[in-house]
Amino acid sequence: MRRALLSVYDKTGVAAFAEELRRLDFELVASGGTATLLAGEGIPVTPVEELTGFAEMLGHRVVTLHPALHGAVLARRDLPEDMADLARHGIAPIDLVCVNLYPFERTVARLDVSWDEAIEQIDVGGPALLRAAAKNHAHVIPVCRRDDYEPVLAELRAGGDVAAGTRRRLAARAFAVTAAYDSAVTAWLAGDERFPETIVPAFDRALELAYGENPHQRAAYYAERGARTHLLARVEQAHGRPLSYNNLNDLSAARLLARELESPACVIVKHANPCGVGVAQTIEEAYEKALAADPVSAYGGVVVLTHPVSAALGERLAEQFVEVLFAPGYDAVAMEALVQKPATRILNDRERRGFDPTERDLKRVLGGLLVQDRDGEPDPLHEMEIAVGSVSPEQWDDLLFAWTVVRHVTSNAIVIARGGMTLGIGAGQMSRVDAVRIAVEKAREHGHDLTGAVLASDGFFPFADGPALALRAGVTAVIQPGGSRRDAEVEAAVEEAGAAMVLTGRRHFRH
Amino acid sequence: MRRALLSVYDKTGVAAFAEELRRLDFELVASGGTATLLAGEGIPVTPVEELTGFAEMLGHRVVTLHPALHGAVLARRDLPEDMADLARHGIAPIDLVCVNLYPFERTVARLDVSWDEAIEQIDVGGPALLRAAAKNHAHVIPVCRRDDYEPVLAELRAGGDVAAGTRRRLAARAFAVTAAYDSAVTAWLAGDERFPETIVPAFDRALELAYGENPHQRAAYYAERGARTHLLARVEQAHGRPLSYNNLNDLSAARLLARELESPACVIVKHANPCGVGVAQTIEEAYEKALAADPVSAYGGVVVLTHPVSAALGERLAEQFVEVLFAPGYDAVAMEALVQKPATRILNDRERRGFDPTERDLKRVLGGLLVQDRDGEPDPLHEMEIAVGSVSPEQWDDLLFAWTVVRHVTSNAIVIARGGMTLGIGAGQMSRVDAVRIAVEKAREHGHDLTGAVLASDGFFPFADGPALALRAGVTAVIQPGGSRRDAEVEAAVEEAGAAMVLTGRRHFRH
Repeated sequence: MRRALLSVYDKTGVAAFAEELRRLDFELVASGGTATLLAGEGIPVTPVEELTGFAEMLGHRVVTLHPALHGAVLARRDLPEDMADLARHGIAPIDLVCVNLYPFERTVARLDVSWDEAIEQIDVGGPALLRAAAKNHAHVIPVCRRDDYEPVLAELRAGGDVAAGTRRRLAARAFAVTAAYDSAVTAWLAGDERFPETIVPAFDRALELAYGENPHQRAAYYAERGARTHLLARVEQAHGRPLSYNNLNDLSAARLLARELESPACVIVKHANPCGVGVAQTIEEAYEKALAADPVSAYGGVVVLTHPVSAALGERLAEQFVEVLFAPGYDAVAMEALVQKPATRILNDRERRGFDPTERDLKRVLGGLLVQDRDGEPDPLHEMEIAVGSVSPEQWDDLLFAWTVVRHVTSNAIVIARGGMTLGIGAGQMSRVDAVRIAVEKAREHGHDLTGAVLASDGFFPFADGPALALRAGVTAVIQPGGSRRDAEVEAAVEEAGAAMVLTGRRHFRH
Repeated sequence: MRRALLSVYDKTGVAAFAEELRRLDFELVASGGTATLLAGEGIPVTPVEELTGFAEMLGHRVVTLHPALHGAVLARRDLPEDMADLARHGIAPIDLVCVNLYPFERTVARLDVSWDEAIEQIDVGGPALLRAAAKNHAHVIPVCRRDDYEPVLAELRAGGDVAAGTRRRLAARAFAVTAAYDSAVTAWLAGDERFPETIVPAFDRALELAYGENPHQRAAYYAERGARTHLLARVEQAHGRPLSYNNLNDLSAARLLARELESPACVIVKHANPCGVGVAQTIEEAYEKALAADPVSAYGGVVVLTHPVSAALGERLAEQFVEVLFAPGYDAVAMEALVQKPATRILNDRERRGFDPTERDLKRVLGGLLVQDRDGEPDPLHEMEIAVGSVSPEQWDDLLFAWTVVRHVTSNAIVIARGGMTLGIGAGQMSRVDAVRIAVEKAREHGHDLTGAVLASDGFFPFADGPALALRAGVTAVIQPGGSRRDAEVEAAVEEAGAAMVLTGRRHFRH
C-alpha cells in the first residue's frame, strides 16, 4: 500500500484530493490541522506524530522536521542500502507529498503586519518536505498547487502512477515555489536596502506571446511577484487580436507617461516613444491634440487615454488605424463603432491601484542587469530656476508639460510643445542638435507654426546651436537641466532672441 | 555554555572559525565530514548523531533533519512554553548555525554531469537548517558565508554577542542564498523550457555605482547567477574614473555588436547606439574607419576594439576624448600615452569565454518583465533572396556588414555603409523615412560621398519614399526584410535607379 503525506496551509480542495487518494489505495498521513480536517470529514488518516513518535512542539515550529518522514520521502527505492536503512528504522516509504506553504507574501503585504507575525509566517517545515519530495521525484510525487490535484489523480486513475515527465514538471514547480518564497523573504528582510548583494526577483508568466520583438524570437510577459500592480493587472481585452511583445512594450511606455500628466490626457506611442501627447479640458480634445501632433506617426500606434471613451470619441477613434486602445471604460456606442476594426486591440482598464513609485528599473546588459531607481518622481519646482527672461503662467504650464513628456522620450530627446500639445519630438539622437533639428522638422512637416512654443531638452545643451535653431523657428521658452561649460553661450542666445529659459538642475536621460 | 552547530560542504576556514568559537566558550556540534575534520584538528566536537540519537542514513540524504536539532535552533528563548518544550525533550538550545550548501550550481555547470549526480547535489538538510536559523535570527546567529566568519567572531569577541542589525543582515543573506540555490535548481529542472510559469533569476552585485542613468537615481550593476560570462567578467579597469551606469549600458551595446563582426573591428557607441563602426585588415584601420564615420558623435564615446591596442593606435586614441576604452590588451607604450587622460576609463578584457547564445533578453515594463530570446544569431544566408538587380561580392560584404550593424541600432533604424565602414546611421525614429533622411544627412554632414554605398533597414519600407531618398544620394544596394504591402513599389524604385535589393525575410527591431 502506498502512502501520501499531506501538510497544507491552504486547505481548499484537500479533503476531496485525500479522499480520492484513499480510493486509489493510498494510506494517508497528515500533520496538525490537515489531519484534524480530514478526520472531521471522516477520512481515515494517521497523524504524523504516530510516525515520528515526537509530539508537535514550539507552537508548530517543528512538526515534520523528522527523519522518519524525511527518510520515508528521500529513500531511493532502487537502492537496496536505502531500503535497508528504512527497514532498520522501521520506516515505510512515502510516495506522494502534498504541501503548500504559510502565506508569507500575503502576510507582509498587509499594512498592519507586525515583525513577529511576519517571522512566524516563514515556513521551515513545509519547504523542507516539499524540497525533499521534489529532489526524489523519481520515486515521489511532489504536489504543491491545488490545480495539480486533479491532473495527478487523473494520471493515477488511468495508469496507476504518474509519468516521469509529469513528476519532473511537478518537481520544477515545487522548486519554483520555494525559490519564489525565499525571494519574498529576502526582499522583506532587505527592507530599505535598495541594492543588496544578491537579488532574486520572482516573476509569474501572465501572458504567453506568439513571438518577441521580432517573429524569430520567442517571448512571454511576466508579472513581478509582490508588485502592487503590473502592466496587465485588471486589464480586460474586450476586442481584437492577441497582444504582441511590441504592443506591451509600447503600452508600458504610454502608461508610464500618462500617469504623470494632468488628466484628461492622451498619449500615442510608436516604437516605444511618444509621437503625440495632449492634455485638455476634455478627453475628446486631449485625443485630438495627441493625434494632430503627428498624424502620420500615430498610424498604427498605441493610444492611452486617462478617461473613459465617450460615444463621440469612439466614433472618432474608429476613423483611425489604432493598434492598441487603452482606457478606463468604454461607452456602449463607442464600443460598437470600435469593434468594426478587427485589428484594434481594445483594452479596458479596471485597475484602481496606483503604481509603486519604489519599483526598481531593470536594464538587461550582457550576462547581467543594471538596476536603478525608476525615474518616476516629478522634479521639485523649487529647484527650478528662471535663468533668462520671464515666464508667463501659460508658458509655465507648457514648460512643465514638455518637461514631463521629454523624460519619456529616448535620449537625446527634444520636445516642442504649446497649449497642452506636443508639436515636434526629436528622439534617440547621438547628438543634441540633431534632436532639435528633427523636432523642428517634424513640427513643420505637420504644419505646426512654432511661434510662442516652448522646448524641453532632457540633457543640457553642449553648444548654442541647438537652442538657436529652435529660437529661429519661433520657440520663446526653453527648459533644460543646465550644467554645460557653455551655459553662458546658450543663455546669451536665448536672451538675444528675447526668449526665456528655465534650468531644472536635473537631467532625464532614458535609453 | 552556548552551542554552535556546524555543517559545511566547503570546509575552507571552518577549523579556524570553530577553534575560535571554542575559545569564546561555544560548545561545538557538527555533522559528518565537518565533525571528522574538526576532530582531526584536535578540536573537541560533538557529532550530531549524539544529539539526535539517529545514525546518518540514506548516504547523507538525512543527517540534520531532526527535531532535536531544529527544535534547538527554532525555540524562542523569550517564550517560556518553547523553553519548556525543549526541557521536556532534553534539548539544549543552539545559538549559532554555520552551514554552506552542496555546490549544485557548479556541478550542473560541468558538461559531463549525470542526472543522478546533479540530483544528489540538491541539498535538503542544509537549506532547512539555514532557513531555521535565519527565521529565528532574533536568537540564533545564521552564518552561511566564509567572509562572515571573521566579522561574526569580531563582534562576539568585542561584545560577547552579535548585534541585532548584524543578525538581520546575516538572515537576509541566508535567505538570499537559499532563494538563489532553488533558483538554480528550478532553472536546471526547467531544462529546455524557455518560458516556464515562474522564473526566479538570481543576480549578484558586481559593481556599486555612484548613480544611475541620471544623478538622482541610485544604481548598481549585477551579474546573473549561472551566466557563462557577463559584462565585466575578467575585465580589469587599468585606469580612469569609476564606471558609470551609462558607461556600462553603452559598453554592453558595443560589445554585443562587436562580437558579431568579423575581426579586427571597432565599435563606437554613444547613447546606447553605435555612431561609428569599422572592420578592416588591421585594428588601427578599423578604428580610423569607426572614428571617421561620425567624428562629432564619437566625442566622449565608448570605444570597443576586438584586437589589442598597439603603440601607434594608443597614441592615436589618446588624441581623442574617449570615455571608455575596451580592448583585449594594451601595448605598454600605448598605455603610457592613454593614461595621460585622467577621464578615460581603460578596460582590459581578459575574458576568453564566449557569450551564451541562449541568454534571455529581459525588458522592464510597468510592474513586470518582457522576456524573450536574444536577437543574437546571424540570419541564415540561404533565406536571403536577391529581389532586384545583381549583387557584387564587395556589395555582399557591405550588405552583410550593414545588416549586422542595423540590428544593434534603435528602431526604426537605417545604416548606410561602404568598404567595412558605416557612413550614416539613422536611429530611433517613429517613421522609417525619417530614419533614412537622418542617415543620409549625417553622412553628408561628415563629408561622405554615398556613391556605391549600401543601405540596411531593420524593418520593411512601408512606402518607396525612404529608399528613393537613399538611391538619389548614391546608394546602389539595399538590404531589408521585405513583407510590405508596397514591396512592388519599393522594388520598382530600386530597379529604376539601377540598384540591387536583398530581402532577408527577417526583421530586427530593437527598442
